[in-house]
Amino acid sequence: VNDLREPLESIIGGLDGGALAATIMGRDGLPVDAIEMDSGDVDVAALLVEFSSLLGQVQKSAQMFAAGGLEELAIRSEHLTTIIRPINAEYLLCLAMRPTANFGKGRYLLRVNAPKLATALA
Amino acid sequence: VNDLREPLESIIGGLDGGALAATIMGRDGLPVDAIEMDSGDVDVAALLVEFSSLLGQVQKSAQMFAAGGLEELAIRSEHLTTIIRPINAEYLLCLAMRPTANFGKGRYLLRVNAPKLATALA
Repeated sequence: VNDLREPLESIIGGLDGGALAATIMGRDGLPVDAIEMDSGDVDVAALLVEFSSLLGQVQKSAQMFAAGGLEELAIRSEHLTTIIRPINAEYLLCLAMRPTANFGKGRYLLRVNAPKLATALA
Repeated sequence: VNDLREPLESIIGGLDGGALAATIMGRDGLPVDAIEMDSGDVDVAALLVEFSSLLGQVQKSAQMFAAGGLEELAIRSEHLTTIIRPINAEYLLCLAMRPTANFGKGRYLLRVNAPKLATALA
């Protein structure tokens, strides 16, 4: 279990209070493990499930038009920034941040922690 | 017409050969104006239409879960990075870049040129 918690904690901790949730999710939308902070009015957990369900369509389109495998989906809206990164064929790593959080740092933290989770989930 | 071309040229020119297409598109997927470079095997124009059609769903989900108005959708795949930004309620600004292009610069160029296009399209 620690093998899943440590990468999530490292993502949340690396964003200096800017992270709202770091979630490992099956591609079917079922969460495996998550760290969630208080995010006020925004229903972050539900939104991540919605966005992850779009990932399949994005991936299909990308492959159909020869853009290759999907590496990252980022959605910035007024009150929330979301980044989703595939861990492997079955799982996704999702990060929800405040709009003021460091976007580049968030992407970096997903990129370095996804391979650790791939190993832990293998 | 120049009011539309100049922002597109400034986006393409600002990416030092990393840009593959800058496109103004109706939310219905119909291109209004575009600058397209040779992008090899990747069908960039078709992919932008596909991705822009997902934008409506993303926007709907974001609003439903109180994340607010959509500001930017970014999709990174193996051979292509795509950034889509709403210009106004009717039009989108889309950028397709090589994966090696400067992502932050691409986002910046869309952010500064979208308001110019909003004025030109009003």
